[in-house]
Amino acid sequence: MTASTWRPSRSSPIPLHRQIIEHLRDLIAGGEWPVGTRIPSQRELAARYGVNRSTVVAALDELIAAGLLQGDRGGGTRVVNRTWGVLTASPPPDWNEYVRAGVQHPNLPAVQEINQAEFRPGILRLGTGEMGPDLLPQTEMAELLGRMAVSPPNLGYGEPNGDLRLREAIASRLNRLGIAASPASLLIVSGALQALQLIAVGLLHRGQVVLTEKPSYLYSVPVFQSAGMKLRGVPMDEQGLRADLVSVYAKQYSGAMLYTIPTFHNPSGTVMSEARRHQLLEVCEATRLPIVEDDVYRELWLDEPPPLPLKAKDASGSVLYLGSLSKSLSPGLRIGWIAGPQPVIERLADIKMQSDYGSSALSQQVAAEWLESGLYDRHLERLRAALRLRRKAALDALARHFRDIADWEAPRGGFYIWLNLHGSPSPRKVFDAALKADLLINPGHLYDREAEGRLRLSYAYATADELTDGIARLSEIVRSLG
Amino acid sequence: MTASTWRPSRSSPIPLHRQIIEHLRDLIAGGEWPVGTRIPSQRELAARYGVNRSTVVAALDELIAAGLLQGDRGGGTRVVNRTWGVLTASPPPDWNEYVRAGVQHPNLPAVQEINQAEFRPGILRLGTGEMGPDLLPQTEMAELLGRMAVSPPNLGYGEPNGDLRLREAIASRLNRLGIAASPASLLIVSGALQALQLIAVGLLHRGQVVLTEKPSYLYSVPVFQSAGMKLRGVPMDEQGLRADLVSVYAKQYSGAMLYTIPTFHNPSGTVMSEARRHQLLEVCEATRLPIVEDDVYRELWLDEPPPLPLKAKDASGSVLYLGSLSKSLSPGLRIGWIAGPQPVIERLADIKMQSDYGSSALSQQVAAEWLESGLYDRHLERLRAALRLRRKAALDALARHFRDIADWEAPRGGFYIWLNLHGSPSPRKVFDAALKADLLINPGHLYDREAEGRLRLSYAYATADELTDGIARLSEIVRSLG
Repeated sequence: MTASTWRPSRSSPIPLHRQIIEHLRDLIAGGEWPVGTRIPSQRELAARYGVNRSTVVAALDELIAAGLLQGDRGGGTRVVNRTWGVLTASPPPDWNEYVRAGVQHPNLPAVQEINQAEFRPGILRLGTGEMGPDLLPQTEMAELLGRMAVSPPNLGYGEPNGDLRLREAIASRLNRLGIAASPASLLIVSGALQALQLIAVGLLHRGQVVLTEKPSYLYSVPVFQSAGMKLRGVPMDEQGLRADLVSVYAKQYSGAMLYTIPTFHNPSGTVMSEARRHQLLEVCEATRLPIVEDDVYRELWLDEPPPLPLKAKDASGSVLYLGSLSKSLSPGLRIGWIAGPQPVIERLADIKMQSDYGSSALSQQVAAEWLESGLYDRHLERLRAALRLRRKAALDALARHFRDIADWEAPRGGFYIWLNLHGSPSPRKVFDAALKADLLINPGHLYDREAEGRLRLSYAYATADELTDGIARLSEIVRSLG
Repeated sequence: MTASTWRPSRSSPIPLHRQIIEHLRDLIAGGEWPVGTRIPSQRELAARYGVNRSTVVAALDELIAAGLLQGDRGGGTRVVNRTWGVLTASPPPDWNEYVRAGVQHPNLPAVQEINQAEFRPGILRLGTGEMGPDLLPQTEMAELLGRMAVSPPNLGYGEPNGDLRLREAIASRLNRLGIAASPASLLIVSGALQALQLIAVGLLHRGQVVLTEKPSYLYSVPVFQSAGMKLRGVPMDEQGLRADLVSVYAKQYSGAMLYTIPTFHNPSGTVMSEARRHQLLEVCEATRLPIVEDDVYRELWLDEPPPLPLKAKDASGSVLYLGSLSKSLSPGLRIGWIAGPQPVIERLADIKMQSDYGSSALSQQVAAEWLESGLYDRHLERLRAALRLRRKAALDALARHFRDIADWEAPRGGFYIWLNLHGSPSPRKVFDAALKADLLINPGHLYDREAEGRLRLSYAYATADELTDGIARLSEIVRSLG
């Protein structure tokens, strides 16, 4: 998870394992690895330092002999003493106890594993929900920064709701989607995930239930669970979330809020139909159930523009609307927004101020420049063209290699293909076998614990050639498991 | 708190109050002001729309007559109906109930009031803890952006710990301060406040007690309280936090952590002595009490460099060290860091990923460029020179106008003068009277509920002339209250 830049020097007269001993001793003596720390595995250390495992073993053996390290029952190795030869007079705080104590849940182990594997050299990322590096508009960004160098950005703290120019630019885009949002009803956030975090701690309380689609991306991030809420999945059909079941679930589980991705759903790719959107709004108004509409994939339509957002028909102020530049322009900017009733926006702005005093002013002003200059719209056209090619490569490869062992819907936009493997093999097993072959996919149980045989593929990150090759190899792996 | 850009047009043939009626009707019908919203005061609306109060009253009267608004007992006005003449068939969700329900505490009313007053035209900010706009290095930032336009920044998601180049630059600065931090033991955060947020939810649990100085800036932000922790203040003397009392307080209140600003303390300006630093570390190691060392003011020394950080002497890994560019370069970048034991850093990085997927990549790369290029160090020299002039102006004005009614310590760095008014007038009363005269100060009870007669002044935001003038006027106000 963390990157260390130290490596033993091969040109040094000091043997590699001696250099490693000295380095590890510094980490331990300096408090970076306090007593109680479980150190990385031999394999991981070998990879990190670019040496053979036997070299690592030699170094660890010496540190164990010196009494600094000790093997533990779980097969790992722990720091048990801080200084060479003498016992620590006063032990440091037991950080491991603190690490376990926190309110916030850790990321799911499978998600942590994916996060780590993403940085492995040679890995082919077939499930990653972000634009590949070659799709990021680096050249246009350079052009834009050059322009901003002429009228430099404001470097002070910003307004609680975010940069006014950016809010105006977003309001005007929302108006074109039929959403009558004023800048005062907008809050700039550092991506849609932060919006969910603010909603969780700002509008809900422990024990409440959030309804969402089953499957849902929401199951893969512990944002509501960490704040003490529970999730309940409402089934979907080909028109999207089953609106007829929403009031049933809301009553049965005392649902306090509905989180939905009506457009290019993550992970299923479904687009909610017009009729379903009307029905859902009606049901939620009647049951007074607020809706969080996550619309971060809207701009990524590949065939035709999707139906207008729920928020466009929301006369009662039931919908909090989330947008973001992360999926369509640059995740690195960390810019998203919430549109909603002003009292709610003010409450969320107050909490946002308490969490980080607002998003990067630099990012906000760069984002405003992208939107205002028209560069964003031109970028979107190029991005759609590129994603169409990748979608075709992925669907062609699936038709060639998976027709007899899986089914899937061709997505009309967004990033995802929700593959349904026949015979329902365990997604975990497929994930492990694929990872051994340097293929990274997102197993379906991240989005629905009961989703046997499901995989989330993404055609956004890998190139067309990589998709063609990777999907062929994935098919062999799946067949070998069957 | 929120900015609205709409204003009635004076060149329109439609009377101003008619235009306001239409606008408010849109806000209500469109759900931006849902039923139950308490609308802004007449005075606030008049200021917002740039009209006389009587014009606002005329508009509100008509909306009340139409049944959309209603006066409430508290003297305010609420939205009671959404549509002209007819009752809403299905009422919207009761957002006000949601706003009250959230886990997170709102900012203290006095803090909210200060946040709002900061944007008032004509206000003189004598307490604001940030560099004034004229001290922000706009020109150098322009130069730097121009340079970055040549090799554009990476726009993708970053590593969980933050941009490696930035972490290396910070590690090398920390090494110069005697802190042996490697990039792997650093986490980039969006300012020191976010660091506290991560520590609160990642390392502590509900009901635990955090010890801190009395008075402390920490009392003015509800970051630990919102996560369910309690604060206990440990007294200070002229050498800083009373280390001899820390173990007593830690035992008596089962303190789980100590938060301290040893260098240019906020609000008292105190610098902890070398001897006290040693003593504090010993006490905390002996009681196994982890320390959060907030060192965001370190670079702002004005006479001589302060003693090395606690973290420099922390061989047991007891100290989590916080730094930031917000006080010394630009709050708008939203860049800070935590240095600490690797297991702790990994835990906090995981939570940071869950909250916002990392800080703005653009901000991080710009920050790295500032540090690496030497521009930051050159900026610090200019900033110190400017702050010396402002400190002198403030101290001269205090000597002239407050000598007989207050005492204070001359700060050796940082931003603050902790004024002690004789006769202990209520800080709240002084705050109110000053605000009426367009002077914004930070009342002492934000930092210590029992701090009668205390005000936090800052010489960072206002110019030397403004400080000379403002402090003179403040003296008259204080005298008129006595």
